[in-house]
Amino acid sequence: MKVNGSLYHTIWVNPENTRIIQVIDQRLLPFEFKVVDLRTAEEAFGAIRNMTVRGAPLIGVTGAFGIYLALQNFGENNWKGGLLQASDYLKSARPTAVNLALLIDEMTALLADCTSLKQAIDLALETAILQKQREISWSEAIGNFGCALIEEISTRKGGQPVNILTHCNAGWLACIDWGTATAPIYKAFQKNIPLHVWVDETRPRNQGARLTAWELSQEGVPHTVIPDNAGGHLMQHGMVDLCLVGSDRTTSQGDVANKIGTYLKALAAFDNRVPFYVALPSSSIDFTMKDGVLEIPIEQRGEEEVTWMEGLLENGLPGKVNIINPTSQVANYGFDVTPAKFVTGLITERGICPATEEGIRSLFPEKSAPQDLQS
Amino acid sequence: MKVNGSLYHTIWVNPENTRIIQVIDQRLLPFEFKVVDLRTAEEAFGAIRNMTVRGAPLIGVTGAFGIYLALQNFGENNWKGGLLQASDYLKSARPTAVNLALLIDEMTALLADCTSLKQAIDLALETAILQKQREISWSEAIGNFGCALIEEISTRKGGQPVNILTHCNAGWLACIDWGTATAPIYKAFQKNIPLHVWVDETRPRNQGARLTAWELSQEGVPHTVIPDNAGGHLMQHGMVDLCLVGSDRTTSQGDVANKIGTYLKALAAFDNRVPFYVALPSSSIDFTMKDGVLEIPIEQRGEEEVTWMEGLLENGLPGKVNIINPTSQVANYGFDVTPAKFVTGLITERGICPATEEGIRSLFPEKSAPQDLQS
Repeated sequence: MKVNGSLYHTIWVNPENTRIIQVIDQRLLPFEFKVVDLRTAEEAFGAIRNMTVRGAPLIGVTGAFGIYLALQNFGENNWKGGLLQASDYLKSARPTAVNLALLIDEMTALLADCTSLKQAIDLALETAILQKQREISWSEAIGNFGCALIEEISTRKGGQPVNILTHCNAGWLACIDWGTATAPIYKAFQKNIPLHVWVDETRPRNQGARLTAWELSQEGVPHTVIPDNAGGHLMQHGMVDLCLVGSDRTTSQGDVANKIGTYLKALAAFDNRVPFYVALPSSSIDFTMKDGVLEIPIEQRGEEEVTWMEGLLENGLPGKVNIINPTSQVANYGFDVTPAKFVTGLITERGICPATEEGIRSLFPEKSAPQDLQS
Repeated sequence: MKVNGSLYHTIWVNPENTRIIQVIDQRLLPFEFKVVDLRTAEEAFGAIRNMTVRGAPLIGVTGAFGIYLALQNFGENNWKGGLLQASDYLKSARPTAVNLALLIDEMTALLADCTSLKQAIDLALETAILQKQREISWSEAIGNFGCALIEEISTRKGGQPVNILTHCNAGWLACIDWGTATAPIYKAFQKNIPLHVWVDETRPRNQGARLTAWELSQEGVPHTVIPDNAGGHLMQHGMVDLCLVGSDRTTSQGDVANKIGTYLKALAAFDNRVPFYVALPSSSIDFTMKDGVLEIPIEQRGEEEVTWMEGLLENGLPGKVNIINPTSQVANYGFDVTPAKFVTGLITERGICPATEEGIRSLFPEKSAPQDLQS
């Protein structure tokens, strides 16, 4: 998508030196646009861990490129052992991100057949690029399927702007291109369907206020940033036609783990009969889990994300302020789980399905485990 | 309640000079504790307008003391006319605050019978002090009724800490002493009932993170500040036993207008069978309204409250950062309405009742209009 009018992905191979992977430093947005070089597995790990890169698809592809970078530091004699170590290491950078493990496992399985380090390095690069392209094509497919939903609402509203609420950043920044939750929005906007996006600021890290708002601005999509507290009020007053969010992990029965606060918006949508759709590539469906609330582990993150608010100071320089009473304890849960019953549908790369075991199975029969098929 | 170990109210008559009213400057909390003198009606007006004082009960009492201050600047010949002017002037400081008009009108009605300025000044002081004491006794009664709820949960949990979630600041700072939502917490804490409070930070103005957290710290009540997004997750996992919030306005059928985001917590409480109680003095029940979502006007406030985050800079000085993508629009709705069906009960100065027309009428039969009594 566009940055200052030019097209970008969020991760790419440096065209002048293919040993270097480049990413956008998402921690500095929207105040600074900076490209960062990744030269080693450690740098890829660091970029995932410190959130230079974020979003399940981008994290996964960064992990895959991390394997490619790791191989470059091994010798002909130790690369097979090193590969397994690097794989475990990179997977540990963000434990909640299921894509990361999936893409790395896919990569290492393919590399197992290589008979030389050179062959492994070439195959790793090729695989990471293919995995990246696959994520983009999935996002674009999600965009096309989701666009039809927006078009339908637009027709029903006689061309009045369709108001869409989104939470966090399930945008192209998280997904290399198009995004998941934002892909239908961009597709609809490019088709000249009148629309407006309510962007939850998404405390504590403000990915909505910083990243989604920046993305939408760069594409020229009309939008308004709101505190996370506002969505219920807007839905009560008919000011939201559609909720569209992404997912970090979706279970086989359609429970959705996403950024903390998603569940609250799903409840408000349900109470006000606003359709609540989750856009996700099937790679983030975890077929080993059913009950998301019981089974999905929720990451607790550092207090400083809540305590310190980063932004631009009055003098225009980056800075931060402590906003919490200094003698208080703070807790920071990263995600919550929206039970499937509050999800109107899942928008995947193969189409839209109900958030149920049957719905998911109908689109992805080959991925469902045998015991699921018989149940 | 306690500030650095000493007992305070949020407004009082200077014991050394009864012509001066003193208040806590709530804009500086939790980072600085400062007492401000009010010597004129203009200073009382300013303190209300610029939010040195906040919270419906405190605003009302500040307005009443403002009348007392105004009278001191009038002569024997002009005080009756001046009183009416001062009354209109002070009421205009926060036009949506119902208590402010109520308490000032009560004051001016009493003063109308005075035959001398001296008598009026004495009566104004006495009346403002009585109005203040009445607010405190209402809060304390709410505390005692609500404490019984906490005690009951504590018994059921075999003395394990009772986890209470609150939103915004319905604390003693807003209410002169005890608070509304916090009163039951302080009462239970003083009875040595083990408890822990989840404090919603309450974007955009962070009254939870700044004021409620500070209050609880000063009293030594165990608590944890959380982003507003976290409450649903906590409730899904059995980490909240009770929600306790205040109310800016409650309709005759029990719909509750309170700080934006309250409705989202009520939905989560309902979905997870967590009791959701609203603590309020009956003075904030608006018997002229029934359907809160349709009838209660919701104030839109300045964008800068969302855009700029105030706190302490890394050097320890007060400062602020801009946290929103600079090219984005921002909206700031101050309140939302929680429909009565999501409210387990109302805790008032006369006891606890269901959030229904019948429930409210049973406690306040004299306040219900005749047509309501027959319906």
